[in-house]
Amino acid sequence: MKLTPRIKIWLSTADNHTVFGSGRFRLLCAIEEFGSLAAAAEKLNISYRKAWGDLKESEKNLNVRLIIKTRGGSGGGKTQLTPEGKRLTQSYAAFADEVKRFSKEAFANHLAEVLPK
Amino acid sequence: MKLTPRIKIWLSTADNHTVFGSGRFRLLCAIEEFGSLAAAAEKLNISYRKAWGDLKESEKNLNVRLIIKTRGGSGGGKTQLTPEGKRLTQSYAAFADEVKRFSKEAFANHLAEVLPK
Repeated sequence: MKLTPRIKIWLSTADNHTVFGSGRFRLLCAIEEFGSLAAAAEKLNISYRKAWGDLKESEKNLNVRLIIKTRGGSGGGKTQLTPEGKRLTQSYAAFADEVKRFSKEAFANHLAEVLPK
Repeated sequence: MKLTPRIKIWLSTADNHTVFGSGRFRLLCAIEEFGSLAAAAEKLNISYRKAWGDLKESEKNLNVRLIIKTRGGSGGGKTQLTPEGKRLTQSYAAFADEVKRFSKEAFANHLAEVLPK
């Protein structure tokens, strides 16, 4: 049977409170894609209320603004990432991708030979 | 606020069925320590029935014996790891430790500078 290493990564405070993880990362990516929190929440299949609450909580814990809402204009209101939100998204992607790639290598080095085919 | 990367690792089949992870790893370590499945289950605060069922399931999925029960003798029955169980325990420890260490390095490289102090 072919086995695969699986991995879940998140960031927490010293007292184990989750501050940021794959859900909020995907939410920020979707906001960047759609320019809309409502569309991003829909893509992730979560409520607008939860999406908003999650990001506000991360902003509070990280002490940084991640998203900014612009009102009015011809297309109505939009939600966009702040420069800090963009930077966090890019850096978190690089971090998570690197750890995932490494876990596959470490699995091949340590476990592939040990586990029965 | 000081943030820490957190990580959960496990092994699954291609269709996403968990075959081995930190719980079963700790169970095998405790069996090696105590020479007893009952003592190992107690240390991990799970029932004997669950400990036994979990390991039998892993054995079935991995197609290998991980533990062996010896009956009788002056001290009564014991449970010990098979050579394959020992090898899996050691290799899994090396794999998981390496991925955890790497995740701390990747966090320092990619995110420490991005997150507010």
